This record gives sequence, structure tokens and C-alpha cells, in this order.
Amino acid sequence: MKAFTEYVTMHTQERRELVRLTPKLEKILAASGIRDGMMLVSAMHITAGVFVNDDEPGLHRDIWEWLQKLAPQGPKYAHHDTGEDNGDAHLKSLLIHHEVILPITKGELDLGPWQQVFYAEFDGRRDKRIIIKVLGV
Amino acid sequence: MKAFTEYVTMHTQERRELVRLTPKLEKILAASGIRDGMMLVSAMHITAGVFVNDDEPGLHRDIWEWLQKLAPQGPKYAHHDTGEDNGDAHLKSLLIHHEVILPITKGELDLGPWQQVFYAEFDGRRDKRIIIKVLGV
Amino acid sequence: MKAFTEYVTMHTQERRELVRLTPKLEKILAASGIRDGMMLVSAMHITAGVFVNDDEPGLHRDIWEWLQKLAPQGPKYAHHDTGEDNGDAHLKSLLIHHEVILPITKGELDLGPWQQVFYAEFDGRRDKRIIIKVLGV
Repeated sequence: MKAFTEYVTMHTQERRELVRLTPKLEKILAASGIRDGMMLVSAMHITAGVFVNDDEPGLHRDIWEWLQKLAPQGPKYAHHDTGEDNGDAHLKSLLIHHEVILPITKGELDLGPWQQVFYAEFDGRRDKRIIIKVLGV
Repeated sequence: MKAFTEYVTMHTQERRELVRLTPKLEKILAASGIRDGMMLVSAMHITAGVFVNDDEPGLHRDIWEWLQKLAPQGPKYAHHDTGEDNGDAHLKSLLIHHEVILPITKGELDLGPWQQVFYAEFDGRRDKRIIIKVLGV
Repeated sequence: MKAFTEYVTMHTQERRELVRLTPKLEKILAASGIRDGMMLVSAMHITAGVFVNDDEPGLHRDIWEWLQKLAPQGPKYAHHDTGEDNGDAHLKSLLIHHEVILPITKGELDLGPWQQVFYAEFDGRRDKRIIIKVLGV
């Protein structure tokens, strides 16, 4: 059994942005030498998320509109009494979740035909890290 | 350490349907021979989910009503410009999530007394796969 | 490869309460002797959740207000025909999720600087268990 770890630093141009991670994850998997097991992809920040869904620009607009509706940006959060203005980003992170587990089979990410892994930045324009941990044989 | 993989094809009669997976997962676990570890149960599609909760029909009606409220079906999604009509199914999948990790102890799924694993179909009536990956000793 | 399991019983004073789990998880990790791998932290009940976010009291008030808005307490749930009054607690559990996977590196929980693990009780004042399963080398 092997465990392999890598950290990736994200730095988005926009405050809110989706970044497709799949190609980077495939390279990390190849470097790990692991053929069968699981890969954890986890944001190390509390205002970001990781999810699996379709790489379709219209859907991505729908996702942002939906996230703004369910966890709206605004001045009303108690968290803002600390001087922060990103209360919505914490709630968006809870909604989307900060981590996924991907299956690995025969040395490949074992994803369905339309499954792509995305990093969802909710309060960007600065360095933020994700951890990738591969466990298997 | 062993890794064991199985794929299960789901094909629901209804567009939206919950299917209890626990008995099937118990059989897969027995076939794996793994006694201690974790089981990943992950939809390979982007309009389906997997979750753990109670097997109570009233609650299941509540869950559907709640999902329709938070991620309503409708004509307004940008995703529908591609010819699709399932924008809501993608958002429901993000809300419920496409995967769970189950603990395995002494060769059994180590679930609480009311915990059952469900496949949640949001755009069914066709073949869709889930992957089950067991990792452990 | 090793697998290590521990059960922790929670019993909150309030019906709804957040309990920071990180110190307890660090002790369990030390007891496991595992240096590199993953830790599953999973509620064994269907009216509780586990999540990772900031330990900031204002934010915690925001989280509760948000959960009450998206999954309100009320008399209208079909689940209540069984005699239960906790329909909202099931939906809150689906929203927050009942489990997280934490990376372990060099014998430590490999969390970001503000990441803390919380148990979220949605229907407490009685014994409820969580399972912690560590897998790695």
C-alpha cells in the first residue's frame, strides 16, 4: 500500500471562479504510481469547494446563479462583525463541500464520461491551497 | 491491503426515484473479502446522487419536495440552450452529492441503526452506472 | 497498511449544537499510529452532520440561521405522520452531510490554517455516536 501527497496552489483572477482540475489530477495520479485505490481532493481553505459535474459553460452560469440565490452575498452576516465580508463564501463552501473522493482503477481516474472535477473559488484573488492524497496499491 | 471494484447499472422507471442500495452493497462487500476499511459508493453520472438517511416513505416525500424547492425544475436554466432540459438534475446532484464513503468493520458496513444508503436518480429512465470501490485489509 | 477504528458518543445539552471535534480527532490519530493516509469522520445518525469550516462564533450563528432558512423546522413534513417532529433535522443532515474525509500527513491531520472539524447536532439531548476510521501506513 502506498500513500502519495501533493499540494497545488490556486490563485484565481476573479473573486468567484471555477477551475477544471481533472488534467492536473491525472498528472498527479501518474506521478504517484498508484494503480488501484482512492484520491482525496480537498480544499485547505474554508471559502472554497471541490465538486464533480459537467464542463458546460451554460451549466456553470446556472451553478453560480443558484449559489448566489441559496447563499447570497450581503451585508447581513454576523461573521462580518470580525471585519470580513465573505460570509456568503463560507456558506457556499458548506453547500458545495470542500472535498471529493475519486476512484482510481488501472492507473486512471475512474470517472463517468461527463464527470469533470472542479475547484470552486468563492473568495479568490489570493493564494489558496488544495491537497491531493492518493491511497492504494 | 486490497482494493476491490464493482460497477452497478441503475435504470429507474421514473425520472426521479430513490433506490435503496444497502443490500447490494453488503453483497459486494462480502465478495471483496475486505474486513476493515472504507467503501466508496459514487455515481458515475452528473444528474444522480448517493446519500445516507432513513428508509421512511414520508421522509422520502419530504426530501423530494425539498429538492424541488431548492433546485426547481424549470425552463430558465442556461444549460437548456444546449438542448437539455435537466438543469435542475445537475443542481440536485450538487446539493445531495454524488458519493459517500462508508466505514467497514469486521466484514460489515459499519452503519448506525437507521442508516440506509440510497441512490437518488434525478434524470432517469435510462442506464446509469455507479462505482463501488472497497479499500482495506 | 493499517485500519484503526474508534467510536465517540456525543450528547449535546441543546437540540441544535456545534461541537468542535479537532482535538479529539488528533488524539485518536495519535493512538492509531498511522502517519500517512485518510481519516473518515462519520455520524452514525441521520439527524446529525460533520463538516469542516471556521471556528468563529459569528459565522456559527450565520450557519444556524442559514440552515433554518433552507431546511426550516415546522409541522408540515410528511415524516411527522410517524410521530416524529424532526423532519428538518433530516434535511439539515442531507445539506451539511454526515461525513468528511481528512488527509493525514506525517502523523498529523493535514488541515489548512483555519480548518476545524465540527459535529453538527440537529436533534440532540440524547446519546448519538460518530465513527472515526483511519486508513493508511
